[in-house]
Amino acid sequence: MVLKTAVKSDIEIAQESKMKPIVEIAKKIGLEEDDLELFGKYKAKLSNEALAKLKTKESGKIILVTSINPTPAGEGKSTVTVGLADAFNRIGKKTMIALREPSLGPTMGIKGGATGGGFSQVLPMEDINLHFTGDLHAITTANNALAALIDNHLQQGNELNIDQRRIVWKRAVDLNDRALRKVIIGLGGPLQGVPREDGFDITVASEIMAVLCLATDLKDLKLRLSRMVVAYNYHKEPVTVGDLGVEGALTLLLKDAVKPNLVQTIEHTPALIHGGPFANIAHGCNSVIATQAAAKLADYVITEAGFGADLGAEKFLHIKSRSAGIKPEAVVIVATIRALKMHGGVPKNELAKENISSLTLGFANLKKHIETINSFGLPVVVAINKFITDTELEVKTLLDMCEKENVPVSLTEVWEKGGAGGIELAETLLAVIDSRENNFKSLYDLSDSIEQKVRTIVQKVYGGKDVEFSSKAKKQLIDFEKFGWSHLAVCMAKSQYSLSDDPGKLGRPSDFVVTVREFKPSIGAGFIVALTGDVMTMPGLPKKPSALNMDVDEDGNAIGLF
Amino acid sequence: MVLKTAVKSDIEIAQESKMKPIVEIAKKIGLEEDDLELFGKYKAKLSNEALAKLKTKESGKIILVTSINPTPAGEGKSTVTVGLADAFNRIGKKTMIALREPSLGPTMGIKGGATGGGFSQVLPMEDINLHFTGDLHAITTANNALAALIDNHLQQGNELNIDQRRIVWKRAVDLNDRALRKVIIGLGGPLQGVPREDGFDITVASEIMAVLCLATDLKDLKLRLSRMVVAYNYHKEPVTVGDLGVEGALTLLLKDAVKPNLVQTIEHTPALIHGGPFANIAHGCNSVIATQAAAKLADYVITEAGFGADLGAEKFLHIKSRSAGIKPEAVVIVATIRALKMHGGVPKNELAKENISSLTLGFANLKKHIETINSFGLPVVVAINKFITDTELEVKTLLDMCEKENVPVSLTEVWEKGGAGGIELAETLLAVIDSRENNFKSLYDLSDSIEQKVRTIVQKVYGGKDVEFSSKAKKQLIDFEKFGWSHLAVCMAKSQYSLSDDPGKLGRPSDFVVTVREFKPSIGAGFIVALTGDVMTMPGLPKKPSALNMDVDEDGNAIGLF
Repeated sequence: MVLKTAVKSDIEIAQESKMKPIVEIAKKIGLEEDDLELFGKYKAKLSNEALAKLKTKESGKIILVTSINPTPAGEGKSTVTVGLADAFNRIGKKTMIALREPSLGPTMGIKGGATGGGFSQVLPMEDINLHFTGDLHAITTANNALAALIDNHLQQGNELNIDQRRIVWKRAVDLNDRALRKVIIGLGGPLQGVPREDGFDITVASEIMAVLCLATDLKDLKLRLSRMVVAYNYHKEPVTVGDLGVEGALTLLLKDAVKPNLVQTIEHTPALIHGGPFANIAHGCNSVIATQAAAKLADYVITEAGFGADLGAEKFLHIKSRSAGIKPEAVVIVATIRALKMHGGVPKNELAKENISSLTLGFANLKKHIETINSFGLPVVVAINKFITDTELEVKTLLDMCEKENVPVSLTEVWEKGGAGGIELAETLLAVIDSRENNFKSLYDLSDSIEQKVRTIVQKVYGGKDVEFSSKAKKQLIDFEKFGWSHLAVCMAKSQYSLSDDPGKLGRPSDFVVTVREFKPSIGAGFIVALTGDVMTMPGLPKKPSALNMDVDEDGNAIGLF
Repeated sequence: MVLKTAVKSDIEIAQESKMKPIVEIAKKIGLEEDDLELFGKYKAKLSNEALAKLKTKESGKIILVTSINPTPAGEGKSTVTVGLADAFNRIGKKTMIALREPSLGPTMGIKGGATGGGFSQVLPMEDINLHFTGDLHAITTANNALAALIDNHLQQGNELNIDQRRIVWKRAVDLNDRALRKVIIGLGGPLQGVPREDGFDITVASEIMAVLCLATDLKDLKLRLSRMVVAYNYHKEPVTVGDLGVEGALTLLLKDAVKPNLVQTIEHTPALIHGGPFANIAHGCNSVIATQAAAKLADYVITEAGFGADLGAEKFLHIKSRSAGIKPEAVVIVATIRALKMHGGVPKNELAKENISSLTLGFANLKKHIETINSFGLPVVVAINKFITDTELEVKTLLDMCEKENVPVSLTEVWEKGGAGGIELAETLLAVIDSRENNFKSLYDLSDSIEQKVRTIVQKVYGGKDVEFSSKAKKQLIDFEKFGWSHLAVCMAKSQYSLSDDPGKLGRPSDFVVTVREFKPSIGAGFIVALTGDVMTMPGLPKKPSALNMDVDEDGNAIGLF
C-alpha cells in the first residue's frame, strides 16, 4: 500500500467513518438487542440463546475468498472480502461477512492490520486489532492453565506416569516473542517444579484455537478439548486432557470466547469476526460457529481462508467443510498484477514498471490455483485487485489470459471505492453461481492412509511430483495407526510463499518433491499436521517494531495503529 | 465457611439472585446509558467522557475496611465490605463499593472467590472471577509485550547497552504456575534470541498492575509507565520504558483496562471493581480512578485493602491516600472470634469449641491494629463477623474487651442476612464519623530516608523493635540515592500472617527485628518495595486444584466455581 499512503491511512479512514450502533446492525439481520451481549456500542457477541434459535433456519450461500500464493507486493484478500460483501448489499443481496480475528503479535510487530484496508474495512478496527472481545486472551489463558496443570501433575506425584521429556503441550502468548521459542522451565529446586525443556507458541498456533474454530457448540468444544494429546507416558501412550480431567475447566474458560463477535464494515455490512487459527500448523479459517451463524442470518456469506489457495482454500475445503458440512457455492481467487509480476520474477522495487513478459510468466501461479479449485468441482471467479501502477496493457493482458482459461474475471477497486468498487465482481460472481455447475467433492477420502492423503494434496493441489517422508515421520505413522488416528484429516504446514515447500520457488514450480519432516497430531482439532520445512509457530519482532509508533491521545484515541 | 456449606454455596446463592440491568444500576447514581461501555447486560465500564464529567463534582466520604492478620479460619473482609454497603443503602445512605478484581490464578487453584460470600456478594460472580472485562488480560499482554520488546532490543543490536544479566522486568501469566518461577529463555541458537535467566510473576504482581491502580488518568498512566525500570546497562544505570520508547504502545494496550468496571451486589448496590495489585510486592488496593469515581457518584464509598491492617491499611494510608489525595473518614477492622482464637493459639480443628482464654490472648492482635489506625489519626470501628460456632460468652467477652479499649464494635451477620445483617454496624459507623475526631496524618514523611521510612513502619505499625538491612539492601540504598529515588514511598513485602516477618508468630509478637533482605524499585508505581522473608510472586497449584471440579453446562452456565 506504499503508493497510497499519500492519500489517507487505514486508521484515518476508519476513524473518520461513522459507525451505526451494533444493535441497529443486528436488527438488519433479524436479531434483537436481547440476542446480543454488547461490548460497548459497536461490538457484540451473539448469545447462546440466539445461536440456538438459528439452528432451525435455512442456510444462505457461502462464498470463499482465497488468493494466489502471497508475495511481499500484497494481494488484499481481506480487503476484497469486505468490499465484495459491501457490493453484494449495494445490489440488494442480504450479505454477511465471516472473517478471522487478528493476533496481537503481528499488530505489535509489523505494520499491517487484518481488518481490510482503505474503504473496505471492518470497524472498529482499533478494537478488533487490539483486545477485541477477549477471545484470544481466553484461549491463551486456557492454553496456559492446561500447561500449569500438566506441570502441577508432574510435581504432585505424576499419577499418569507422564514422561517429562515427551510433554508436547506448549505454553502460549499472543505476541511475537522469539526468546520464548525454546526455554527451560522448573528451575530453582524441588519446590519450583520439575525442570524440563519447553517452548511457547503464539496463541493462534495453539491447538485450542483450532479446536474452538472447528467446534459446533459448547458440548462439541468440551469433547474436542478432552481429546487433545498433551504428552506421552513412559509406555509411549498418549495422555489427553480427558485423562487429566480438566476439560470442564478449559471449557469454562472458553464459554464466552466460543460465541461469535458481530461488527460492521464502513458501509454497515454486518460481519462476524471469530477465531483465527494459523494457516500453517492449523487450518486458517474463522470459526465454524460464525460461518454457520452468518449463513443462517443472511442469504450470502463472504468468508476467507488464510494464505493462498494451496493452503487456506485446500484446508477450508478438506477440513472445515467436511467437519461442519459446509458447501461453498463458488470461490474467488484474489490476485494483483504486482504480485503476479513478482511470481514472474520481478523484484519488489521494480514493480511499478510495466512488465508484460513477467506478468505472463507469473500468471502460471494463478492458473494453477484456478485448476485446483475446479478440481474440487467448484466454480471460480478471479478478482484483480487494482493498483494505480497497473498499466492498461497489463490489465488487458491479464484479462485475456483469464478469458483463454475460460475463467470469469473482474477488476475491483474496493480499496479506493468501497462496495462501489466491487459491484462488477459481485455481479460476475452471482452470474457464475447461477450458471456454472457445482459438483463439490473432496480430493481425498478420510479412509485413505495418511501418506495417501498427503500425496493427494501434494500432487493435486501443489502440482508436485511426489512426497518423501523422513524416517521419523514414518515411525510416527506406525504409532498413529496403533492409536487409531489414521482416519483423521491431514493439515499441511508448508511455506505459504510457494506451491512447493521451498519459499524461493515462485510462479508454478513443477517436478518438485515435498519432504514431510514430522507429523504433529492435533486430535482435538481432528487432524494430523504434516510439517514440511521450517514452520514458524512463534514469530519474532523486527528491528523497528510497530509498537515504537503506537500511542494513545488523552481522550483514549489510538494513534499509529497502521 | 466449612460449617455453612450444608446451607447453600456462594455460587448457588449468586445464580439464584436476580440482577438488574446494569443500565438501571447506573441510573441510580446519575449515569446515563451513554456514560457506559456495556459488557453484556450486567457489566459496564465507565467511559472516558463519563469520568471527565465527574471531575468537577464534590466527593463523598470514603470508609476503609481492613482486618486483623488473616488466618486459615477466614475473616470475611470482602463479605463485610459488601454487606456494609448494602446496609448503608438500606438506611437511606447513597453508597457505592470499590473493590479489587480477582486473579484467575487462585480461582483455578484454591476454592474461594474474591467477590464476597453468602448474601453479601457482587454479581455476576462467575464473570468477575473469570475473565471479567479483560483488564487482567490487558495487563498481562502489556507486561509481556514489554518483555518481548526488551529481548528484541538485545537481539537487534542492544543500542541501550542493556546488561542481560541485569534485566529486572519479568514476564507474567495470570495463573498459578510454579514451573515458571525460574526459567532460561532464548535458547536454540542465534536466531532465537539471547539466552538468559528469566522468570514469570502472576499478573497481579506486575508493576503495570500497581501503576494502573495508582494512575489518575491516561496521561498519568503513560508517564508512570515510561518511568518503570526494566533493566540496568553495563554502567549499572537504570534503563526505563521511556528509554525503549514504548510507553505509548503500552498505554494503548491499557486504554480500556484503565476504565473502572461497574457491577452490582445481590441487593443492587452499585460497585466499581477495578484493579487488583498484590498486597505484598505492591500496595493491595483497587484503582485510584475507581475509588475517586465512586466518591463522586455516591455519598459514601466502602472500599477495602488487601491482607491485614499492617499491610493493606498501612499501604492504603501511606501510598494510595498520599498519591491520590484520598482521606478516609473511618476505618473498619474486621475480625472473627474463630480467627482471634487462632491468634490465641487454638489449632484450626478445635475452633468450634469455646475457648475464652485463647480469645483473650488473641485479642492482642486486634488491639494492635486498633492502636495503629488510631495513630494515623483515624476513627476505628470493629466489625465482628459472626459465625454459628461463636458462643454467647465468647461474644460477650469480645464486646467487653472492645469496650475497655473505648473502640466502637458491632456484630454483623451479613453472610447470612445480606445488608440486613450489617445495619447495626452501619449505624455505629455513621455515629463514629459524626462524633469522633479525624486527624488523618501520615506516620512518615516522604523526605525521610528509605531506612527511616521502613523503621517507622516496623516500629509504629508492626510493633517491632528494629530493622536490619542486609548488606545487599544497604548497597542498593546508595544506588537509589544516586538515582534520585530516596523520596519515594516504601512498600513493605512481608508475611500477611504475622505482625512480624515470621509467619509463625501469631497474636501480638514483640521485641522482634525485621530483616530487609533486598529492595525492589517500582519507580512507575512510585515506591520502593522492601522485601522481608520469602515473597511469593508466583503461587503454585495445590495437589487437587479447583480446576478439577469446574465445568460448564450445555447452556453455558458455570459449575463448580466455588
